[in-house]
Amino acid sequence: MIIQFKQPLNQAVVQSLLQQLKEEHHHGMLVANHLVIFDADELTLNERQKSVISEVIHTQPRYVLGSRVFHPEDTIVKTPHNKIGGHNFTVMAGPCSVENEAMIQDLAVQVKAAGATVLRGGAFKPRTSPYDFQGLGETGLSYLRKAADATGLDVITEVMSPEQIPMMLPYTDIFQIGARNMQNFALLKAVGQTNKPVALKRGLAATVDEMLNAAEYIASQGNLQIILIERGIRSFDDKYSRNVLDVGAIPILQKLSHYPVLVDPSHAAGHADLVPIYGQAGVAAGAQGMIVEVHQNPSQAWSDAAQQLTPGTFKQMVVTTAKIHDLLVADQAAKN
Amino acid sequence: MIIQFKQPLNQAVVQSLLQQLKEEHHHGMLVANHLVIFDADELTLNERQKSVISEVIHTQPRYVLGSRVFHPEDTIVKTPHNKIGGHNFTVMAGPCSVENEAMIQDLAVQVKAAGATVLRGGAFKPRTSPYDFQGLGETGLSYLRKAADATGLDVITEVMSPEQIPMMLPYTDIFQIGARNMQNFALLKAVGQTNKPVALKRGLAATVDEMLNAAEYIASQGNLQIILIERGIRSFDDKYSRNVLDVGAIPILQKLSHYPVLVDPSHAAGHADLVPIYGQAGVAAGAQGMIVEVHQNPSQAWSDAAQQLTPGTFKQMVVTTAKIHDLLVADQAAKN
Amino acid sequence: MIIQFKQPLNQAVVQSLLQQLKEEHHHGMLVANHLVIFDADELTLNERQKSVISEVIHTQPRYVLGSRVFHPEDTIVKTPHNKIGGHNFTVMAGPCSVENEAMIQDLAVQVKAAGATVLRGGAFKPRTSPYDFQGLGETGLSYLRKAADATGLDVITEVMSPEQIPMMLPYTDIFQIGARNMQNFALLKAVGQTNKPVALKRGLAATVDEMLNAAEYIASQGNLQIILIERGIRSFDDKYSRNVLDVGAIPILQKLSHYPVLVDPSHAAGHADLVPIYGQAGVAAGAQGMIVEVHQNPSQAWSDAAQQLTPGTFKQMVVTTAKIHDLLVADQAAKN
Amino acid sequence: MIIQFKQPLNQAVVQSLLQQLKEEHHHGMLVANHLVIFDADELTLNERQKSVISEVIHTQPRYVLGSRVFHPEDTIVKTPHNKIGGHNFTVMAGPCSVENEAMIQDLAVQVKAAGATVLRGGAFKPRTSPYDFQGLGETGLSYLRKAADATGLDVITEVMSPEQIPMMLPYTDIFQIGARNMQNFALLKAVGQTNKPVALKRGLAATVDEMLNAAEYIASQGNLQIILIERGIRSFDDKYSRNVLDVGAIPILQKLSHYPVLVDPSHAAGHADLVPIYGQAGVAAGAQGMIVEVHQNPSQAWSDAAQQLTPGTFKQMVVTTAKIHDLLVADQAAKN
Repeated sequence: MIIQFKQPLNQAVVQSLLQQLKEEHHHGMLVANHLVIFDADELTLNERQKSVISEVIHTQPRYVLGSRVFHPEDTIVKTPHNKIGGHNFTVMAGPCSVENEAMIQDLAVQVKAAGATVLRGGAFKPRTSPYDFQGLGETGLSYLRKAADATGLDVITEVMSPEQIPMMLPYTDIFQIGARNMQNFALLKAVGQTNKPVALKRGLAATVDEMLNAAEYIASQGNLQIILIERGIRSFDDKYSRNVLDVGAIPILQKLSHYPVLVDPSHAAGHADLVPIYGQAGVAAGAQGMIVEVHQNPSQAWSDAAQQLTPGTFKQMVVTTAKIHDLLVADQAAKN
Repeated sequence: MIIQFKQPLNQAVVQSLLQQLKEEHHHGMLVANHLVIFDADELTLNERQKSVISEVIHTQPRYVLGSRVFHPEDTIVKTPHNKIGGHNFTVMAGPCSVENEAMIQDLAVQVKAAGATVLRGGAFKPRTSPYDFQGLGETGLSYLRKAADATGLDVITEVMSPEQIPMMLPYTDIFQIGARNMQNFALLKAVGQTNKPVALKRGLAATVDEMLNAAEYIASQGNLQIILIERGIRSFDDKYSRNVLDVGAIPILQKLSHYPVLVDPSHAAGHADLVPIYGQAGVAAGAQGMIVEVHQNPSQAWSDAAQQLTPGTFKQMVVTTAKIHDLLVADQAAKN
Repeated sequence: MIIQFKQPLNQAVVQSLLQQLKEEHHHGMLVANHLVIFDADELTLNERQKSVISEVIHTQPRYVLGSRVFHPEDTIVKTPHNKIGGHNFTVMAGPCSVENEAMIQDLAVQVKAAGATVLRGGAFKPRTSPYDFQGLGETGLSYLRKAADATGLDVITEVMSPEQIPMMLPYTDIFQIGARNMQNFALLKAVGQTNKPVALKRGLAATVDEMLNAAEYIASQGNLQIILIERGIRSFDDKYSRNVLDVGAIPILQKLSHYPVLVDPSHAAGHADLVPIYGQAGVAAGAQGMIVEVHQNPSQAWSDAAQQLTPGTFKQMVVTTAKIHDLLVADQAAKN
Repeated sequence: MIIQFKQPLNQAVVQSLLQQLKEEHHHGMLVANHLVIFDADELTLNERQKSVISEVIHTQPRYVLGSRVFHPEDTIVKTPHNKIGGHNFTVMAGPCSVENEAMIQDLAVQVKAAGATVLRGGAFKPRTSPYDFQGLGETGLSYLRKAADATGLDVITEVMSPEQIPMMLPYTDIFQIGARNMQNFALLKAVGQTNKPVALKRGLAATVDEMLNAAEYIASQGNLQIILIERGIRSFDDKYSRNVLDVGAIPILQKLSHYPVLVDPSHAAGHADLVPIYGQAGVAAGAQGMIVEVHQNPSQAWSDAAQQLTPGTFKQMVVTTAKIHDLLVADQAAKN
């Protein structure tokens, strides 16, 4: 149940409603001029309360904060150098792992020249085996921050547990939640309590509803600056492609929710020659941007060697995908 | 093992080689100026034989006729009104089922006006339940043929068993093999013995290798006029999309084989509002055309009511996808 | 809608009802003392008709002939030497392919000694590649028949297309429909028009409902002597096991339908060391029998070399699975 | 590479080897009388070192601590009241969520009477939606501990983040890692640093290798008291069963690793009527125990209402599964 108040808010009535909820042991939350009540089928309202209400939406208490029912317009996620969502096309790029200071500085320059405005790079790496390279840690984060600042880029990097958050705050502009942690609810709540944007990757076998419920864990803590990333799902044939890019999830997520949806063609494909094509497909399906792994010398990379693009290939990919994005925006405008 | 002869063929040597194969109980086949030997690891050649050979390719006897090893250039499938494959963009459209003569005649006019050059329509329908509408049969085929002839379109329609083939020959220009029959080997061999093009749909859980081996059943009978269709695979979340469109399969099939690859966004999506987007994604992944279900009044359709487009929506879809196709061809040309 | 008549049937009324259906263009069928009407929501009955009716069941026209609604008791499929279903435990065994007369004769003796009462063996093999061994054809069937007759076993063998059926009738006691042909509807209808039992294998990605609808294609032609076989489904991890044995499908199929359900541990596992364990799991899930690939010398088999058991291992497997079956029947009896 | 030392250990040589590893920047670990070296292809050993070594095992540095290569015998996990693994059959049971003190006390008595020796119950619940009941927290843990102590049972309960561990230590005997957290590597490392047994559930789409690598994260911290739990995987048909119980994973995990493997039929089935059957199948596949959800009044449960068993049904299930387990142990003994 969502109660939309008339503006300006009548604070006295709103506070009395919140007090009433508390006394009746309901679970509710004030977001802008909406009161979202999660666990009450129907709250009985008196006449005074009704007089300050613009609309009452009767809806299932499922990912309500993320839904178009609650927030019909596209959310625009704001970072120091970017507006992500709506008709914007956002390109994030960088290496799988930050390996040393020189490589990330050089890459920052190259990916910016190719059109990227957000620098990605892993400092804490979720690796299948405990014996694989686990990232440079805070040192890697400092390299990433310096490289981004020197080039005027934002930083996105993965956070793996709640206790890392305070340390990471100065280094990153966007917290990335990896596919393996999509339902790590303690972590989702923790980033939900920061005021930094969060990019949530879809789990390998997560349904659309599960992904939106995971986003709701973040939103329920007050942080609605959320970006959704389709990065491929696990299927029965991984001989030529690591995962199956579920392009259909992009328009479906956009229809159900107001968050920007990006495509990650690198992890979906797992092979560099397929990455630009997966990017094209994702953007043609409506993705409002993409996040791409780029490395100066992919075959020597410390992780994900097979799927990283050279800066040159990446540049061509940005050109083609940006054209597709522009074409769709123009066709969409012509239709309306 | 593939033996490529110098041209013009020295018929005497070729015939002696075929005779030798037979005597040694090998399984081989002459295709154009190539002799493909399937079950012999290595054939010992004498000097006279060697003198008429241009090249010997040592390769695994797996979907060899369909592979780029055997045939590096794109195959162009030829029908009365179309060249399918290469840089051509082929649009096939029509209703799920032919319901009566008037509807198919009217639709033929409309889909042609929207840009289609092949008319699709089911006369024999593979339905999950035996109690669902099974199609109008030969009567439906005759309506389809007439409508196509009146508008200058080719016909594509599904064949479900070998015994239907002789009856269907006058009515269709392309035999479609449905997803459920992708490994109906008796049917594949039977259409392989005709000289009509065959459009092979990917099975719901078929790997890329299985699909190319299925195509090889057709090719091994001498018919290499094959079109491959990606139509979505079965996955774990069918709440909002009937299947997952595996866009990655498109470039993978094109890399491994020389056949044209089309996308079927209708069966992948299962919901009309997603169909144009799936088409865009498929074409952006390199599909050389698409096959789309269109109906004058989708909600009243006798089958697949949820996923058929109106002629108007279809027309817009053709405009956008054709632009994406042209953009990719131009970018590709610029790269080379 | 199912109309159950009082017995003995009042033929006059029944025939008049069938005539009425025909005139009103309904699709119906008389099975024993039931009239099953597939496409009529509700038939209006007059008083005379009502007087000969014992019960009217209002049900969705989906796999009605196969459902417990229509036929509450377990179906017992009868072959010359077996009663399959109910509390019976049926063991079918033999090689993947019949390779020659001596091997199948010898194997028939061995599998019978180990407890099998049905001899399996492929004469027409559905192979992924057209260049793999396709079976000995009718010659193989004749070897199989002779070996079975010499030992007092029934024969089960795969049929791949409708035109093979008349030729195969003298050789086999049970027609097997392979996983790839589970939705080859022309084939299902054709075996449905014979009076031989049909063993239907689950498709690699077929849902339970699709399998029961496939069985209904057979049943709708009048042949209800159907055996269902769970043989593993395709999943995301085939490194150690070829497929995932879906043990849950066994009790689900038994709950929804009255047909016997067997387990095929050989194709599910794909590796001989796992086959007995998969058989145990399937029988513990309630399977009323199993079909197992056995070969004198598995590593030299012409097909499925990795998954065939030696006669010795097979014998031990029969001992253990039969104990599990007996234990479950006894516990079930104790509960009731 | 694994170096197995002669016993008793020559501490001087061992310490010198560890020092050498450190100096050469290798990653190694001493476990009992084995030195496991993860990142060195081959370490060069001098004669003095060779003289104290019993065997050198050259193996891939993948889940080595969990592998049979490193530890051929079954691991027996020890808790105050149980020995889990080997030929033991361990039954864990209790409600999905601890709802109040009385219910868990009563259930503890009932499940013990039915044969359980470990009490399960959730106090921190990983729920798909943030608005669903999240568990009673520490209060729930205290109820669980008291109920177990009163009846002489061990406690197993789920931990969801590293910071909960110190608080939970007095309350639980086994830490359970849920399916969603199977690759929450920070959490795995944290429980690996305790000396409590850890029960690791398989992720919904985790491969066998990924599961064993996840276990290796725990083991690599020094804690090898690990229990693996197969709880069903996500597949394409969830109409009648929530997940597919992958019975094959049980013998595969047992072959590759030395840890005990249990089956969780409750989460696999998702429907109470299937739970005993899934338990039978899992035990027949070799599971060394099971973990089952039991509730006094399932339909009123605060979570997982559909899949919990009544104490009476659970009791029958224990009887049947224990018989199957005994039968297999006896047959196995007879074979050896």
